[in-house]
Amino acid sequence: MSCMRELDKFILLQLADSDKTIWDLLDGWQFTLAEFISTVNKLYEEGLLDTDGKKLRLTREGKGRVNRAELRYMPRLCGACKGRRITLPKPYRGLLRKFRRAVRGRPAPKDDYYQGFVGELDVAARIALMNYHGDVADKKIILIGDDDLLSVALALTGLPSRIVVLDVDERIGDFIDGVNEKHGLTIEFLRYNVEGPLPKTLLNRFDAFSSEPLETESGMKAFLSRGVACLRKGGVGYFGLTTLEASRRKWFMVEESLLRMGCVITDVIRGFTIYPSVYFKEPKEPFLPLLKFKLKFDFKEKFETGWYKSSLVRFEAVEPSPIVRWNEKIKVELVDPKESLAHPFSYGPPKPRDGEGPRRARKLAANIDRARQKPF
Amino acid sequence: MSCMRELDKFILLQLADSDKTIWDLLDGWQFTLAEFISTVNKLYEEGLLDTDGKKLRLTREGKGRVNRAELRYMPRLCGACKGRRITLPKPYRGLLRKFRRAVRGRPAPKDDYYQGFVGELDVAARIALMNYHGDVADKKIILIGDDDLLSVALALTGLPSRIVVLDVDERIGDFIDGVNEKHGLTIEFLRYNVEGPLPKTLLNRFDAFSSEPLETESGMKAFLSRGVACLRKGGVGYFGLTTLEASRRKWFMVEESLLRMGCVITDVIRGFTIYPSVYFKEPKEPFLPLLKFKLKFDFKEKFETGWYKSSLVRFEAVEPSPIVRWNEKIKVELVDPKESLAHPFSYGPPKPRDGEGPRRARKLAANIDRARQKPF
Repeated sequence: MSCMRELDKFILLQLADSDKTIWDLLDGWQFTLAEFISTVNKLYEEGLLDTDGKKLRLTREGKGRVNRAELRYMPRLCGACKGRRITLPKPYRGLLRKFRRAVRGRPAPKDDYYQGFVGELDVAARIALMNYHGDVADKKIILIGDDDLLSVALALTGLPSRIVVLDVDERIGDFIDGVNEKHGLTIEFLRYNVEGPLPKTLLNRFDAFSSEPLETESGMKAFLSRGVACLRKGGVGYFGLTTLEASRRKWFMVEESLLRMGCVITDVIRGFTIYPSVYFKEPKEPFLPLLKFKLKFDFKEKFETGWYKSSLVRFEAVEPSPIVRWNEKIKVELVDPKESLAHPFSYGPPKPRDGEGPRRARKLAANIDRARQKPF
Repeated sequence: MSCMRELDKFILLQLADSDKTIWDLLDGWQFTLAEFISTVNKLYEEGLLDTDGKKLRLTREGKGRVNRAELRYMPRLCGACKGRRITLPKPYRGLLRKFRRAVRGRPAPKDDYYQGFVGELDVAARIALMNYHGDVADKKIILIGDDDLLSVALALTGLPSRIVVLDVDERIGDFIDGVNEKHGLTIEFLRYNVEGPLPKTLLNRFDAFSSEPLETESGMKAFLSRGVACLRKGGVGYFGLTTLEASRRKWFMVEESLLRMGCVITDVIRGFTIYPSVYFKEPKEPFLPLLKFKLKFDFKEKFETGWYKSSLVRFEAVEPSPIVRWNEKIKVELVDPKESLAHPFSYGPPKPRDGEGPRRARKLAANIDRARQKPF
């Protein structure tokens, strides 16, 4: 659908007054990655956009296409809260210090699980928003997937009455066990694959759930169904959803699923969570070869972070009733073949090596791979 | 559903470190007005809350109930953007000056139409957000109901290619005609009642629509259906919805309606729009007698503004298909008898006199009146 919008102008407006790297442009992009690639390529081929190999800039003709009046009235994302709506009071500094210390030596993201954790500040911001809505103190909280180690930060506040982590990755359980012991915390860990039935003891037991679901249709359905199944009536959920990799049709499907599960959406805050796309030393960022392969011009190759963001969706479970029943199995696709077939990267660059880059980047790479294997 | 949440703590947390007027408390309240009344009354009767007749404060026992750790980690609403996510660049100052001058002598809110317009700054903020999403420049925009005179501010930017206002109030049409003439604008006005069929010439013609719908079920359905009917495929909508007077069940109904109409919700920004509840000289604020009647303690009677806020919902019409067909009539209720029967104000204070206070306040008063007439 967003194809029906003139996406060119968003790039033109961004470059109107200053040259920018490809990462700067991605930072301001509100549509899919696929649309980004096709839009900048189109502008380049039309001679509206040029590059010195590092930064992109508009040509004279490109500048002529900028609607100056539109630019004049373009607001800025709030510099104080970065569009998150809230600002963190001082005690979060101490929390962040403790959290950073506690998660040293955390497990590296693993390819098989499409992991890749969000930054510590973003973890703190999520706790702040949850607390703003009264969803932390004395609450029973369940996390489905926790490579972000939100559980540890939550536990360090001392506020929740119970924290349960479900994750397929045993290493996260081991790490949490260690943190529990070292810091005197009581986070419960259960190895669990969202494809399988939920332990009955978890049903309708929790006040809040949080997750960063896999952004495939089956992934969204599974993660949200499991979360909703764990919520008591009136419980709340928090999850992330991107515009970079989830089309408007997928957003529609997600919202429809939520309503069918008796949940009402109360907040959708764009760009609330930032994924630091490079996290470990010597990153071999899989986006890089993808972009190099698909973009029709040279660009600054030094990978920059902070542009991969997701919207935070908050919902309340008025009458929680998961569309995947708690004891039902569901096959979770790591990629959506249909969406990946439409992907401009398709049939392109090589599969990244094991252990490279974050979850979302690897998911994208896997999309391509899948698309190559199943041409139609 | 929010009845299942412990609402007491939100009042306790707000009063923990400073005494506040009833209006300060309302400003921070995230639930319904009815829940506000019952919560503060309960706290007062339990001896947790007291008053000097002006400000409310916690008693010693009340302070003992505050969760200090929860308070420590309570974030602040961003002071820079007031939680709107964006900040306005300088050109908006000039726009605001021009807008304020242009709307001098605007029609006073009229009781029959449940009007009551939002402040000029909020009108500017809405334009800024719309422009942020690329929904203003060179766009055909339709406003359903325009006592806010958003049309005038939009026209003064010079950005939209067409602005059409539908409003039942002929005085707004006359006023807009005058503004058009004086400022050389071309806003189109059509007298229209949302209950009636839409002029066929408006169907699927617009890129964007904006409205502050009447918050009854039939009102929401009518305003949103008419708006969606006017949108082209891929068009966008902006509308306000409160938590003060719309229950979570009503939010659910609104979201379900949107999805049924082929629209996907892209943003829900709480408290984006502030209604200045007192606007004209010598306000006879109908909330005042209502609160005086229902609250079990004295409070500062000088009415303060800025606490009546609505969330801004943005949606994109993936496949626009209104649930009320364009040529179909719909009866719009000014109040929802079911919701008003559950209202704690019911059977209470007298109906406010004609011309008093803003739209929402009068709607509330009408609710009571209706509830009195139809006890069950």
